[in-house]
Amino acid sequence: MASIAYFGPQGTFSEQAALAANRPDHTLVPEATVPEALAAVRHGHADLACVPVENSVEGAVSATMDALAVDEPLVAIAEIVLPVRFSLLAKPGTELGDITSVASHPHALAQVQGWLAKHLSHATQLAATSTAAAAVGVLDGQCGAAITAPVAADHYDLEVLETGIADVDDAVTRFLLLQRPGALPAPTGSDRTSIVAVAAYQRTGVLAEMLTELALRGINLSRIESRPMKGRLGEYRFYLDFDGHVAEQRIADALAALHRRCHEVRFLGSYPKADGTPTLAGTDNADADYAAAASWVTKVQQGRTG
Amino acid sequence: MASIAYFGPQGTFSEQAALAANRPDHTLVPEATVPEALAAVRHGHADLACVPVENSVEGAVSATMDALAVDEPLVAIAEIVLPVRFSLLAKPGTELGDITSVASHPHALAQVQGWLAKHLSHATQLAATSTAAAAVGVLDGQCGAAITAPVAADHYDLEVLETGIADVDDAVTRFLLLQRPGALPAPTGSDRTSIVAVAAYQRTGVLAEMLTELALRGINLSRIESRPMKGRLGEYRFYLDFDGHVAEQRIADALAALHRRCHEVRFLGSYPKADGTPTLAGTDNADADYAAAASWVTKVQQGRTG
Repeated sequence: MASIAYFGPQGTFSEQAALAANRPDHTLVPEATVPEALAAVRHGHADLACVPVENSVEGAVSATMDALAVDEPLVAIAEIVLPVRFSLLAKPGTELGDITSVASHPHALAQVQGWLAKHLSHATQLAATSTAAAAVGVLDGQCGAAITAPVAADHYDLEVLETGIADVDDAVTRFLLLQRPGALPAPTGSDRTSIVAVAAYQRTGVLAEMLTELALRGINLSRIESRPMKGRLGEYRFYLDFDGHVAEQRIADALAALHRRCHEVRFLGSYPKADGTPTLAGTDNADADYAAAASWVTKVQQGRTG
Repeated sequence: MASIAYFGPQGTFSEQAALAANRPDHTLVPEATVPEALAAVRHGHADLACVPVENSVEGAVSATMDALAVDEPLVAIAEIVLPVRFSLLAKPGTELGDITSVASHPHALAQVQGWLAKHLSHATQLAATSTAAAAVGVLDGQCGAAITAPVAADHYDLEVLETGIADVDDAVTRFLLLQRPGALPAPTGSDRTSIVAVAAYQRTGVLAEMLTELALRGINLSRIESRPMKGRLGEYRFYLDFDGHVAEQRIADALAALHRRCHEVRFLGSYPKADGTPTLAGTDNADADYAAAASWVTKVQQGRTG
């Protein structure tokens, strides 16, 4: 049976995202770390991996991005965006006033300090290796309550004392569903393409040139991050997300231009946008425009300039 | 006496950075939060504020940057870069094997999971509101040891069991020393300028245009971050750090160009780079080049084109 490896254990936000990916024909398989979830797909033990790439509350996103930038390439076929809202789980019959200790992943605890100060100010805060591990800690009697992903309540025999816990109302975390390189998802008219590019950062303007290559083709950037590369002084990695699908000529053309300008470009996938907003394309950049232009240039090269 | 407000309590990395700023004529005053440290300077209760702006291990950097982007402007006069290396503090006479619980700020715990798994795998991990609060927790008997900034050992009557703890060898955290707008630090030949710009993100290419304005003037970008703005759909904030001082004509000229292109530009300071590397300037961008060009254009405007 087909399977999705996710950053486990059972009951984490990554499992919640894997469920939201809505592939009922796939078994969900927890892995201990993000690199192990990626390795499961790279080595063929799993078909897909579901890992956090933005605002994770259970681990460092930079480590995920760095893991995608090296080793065997993987490509995203979907993105999943989840609200950062936690549940408070405790043993059945527990009252809020009974709780003297509360556990979660350190990143998750950091995101609910306001709520804890208001509702559980006297509880000791315990750091767990994941939000789900915190739930296990409650079952084992190591702590009185756990701050978890909502899905944790489906796995552990605990009561939901509170749900929708969030200091910041509109915080979201973003995941990618990745596979080994193969057939790409078909364009939907609401697509995003992700790449990681390595370029000489000390050369003034290289990033301006890269973004101009995108802008000239009407490509709308939705995210940019720069990171210095360890052990490669003067080189930077740029993680870029932009509107469009590599099946579109303007996107293919832009990627070719970046390939000429950068030391290295890795394609991380073209996949439907979670929010379903239409791809912005600018004008004069349709496939028909590219075809007409290419056909004209061919004529010119053949001496048929008329 | 002049004072520096920092993100406290005593013994945090922010205090370590404030000490490293090397202003022995300034008293260091702890504040409970980053916004309170900034408010102390905005309201004139302190002369300077020392706050984390990159890879903080004791709070969210994004909150700091957002706090600098609004309210009364503050400008940086120095940056301080510290290695992310922790000390393990416990009551005198404690052996590593005796420790059954270890506390720190959630972000700090997240950064030493490898070390803890190797050396204190059986210790319960407790989340504290800061690394320094964890040290206080040891004194109070709430936990057996604390993962702290090195400077915490100077404040609390605890023993340093281990120092230089780091899962990643070359991780650093960066702080800015901020004041109310006033005289800027003189250019040193190794300067950085920080700004936050608000622009319409949906307009394809606006960031390419902004970076091209910098590149055309030989300005080397050292950091870029994009963040969507809450409640202002379609607008993004860009945090940009680049080489150079606003006293240089090419930097002044670039800032003026960004001011024309963006909805809003806030100057966050021109200050000496912590690493002391010379400012990269490209060619044909010296103040003399600007002066000669301006003088020529004036002549043209006066009809003296010869």
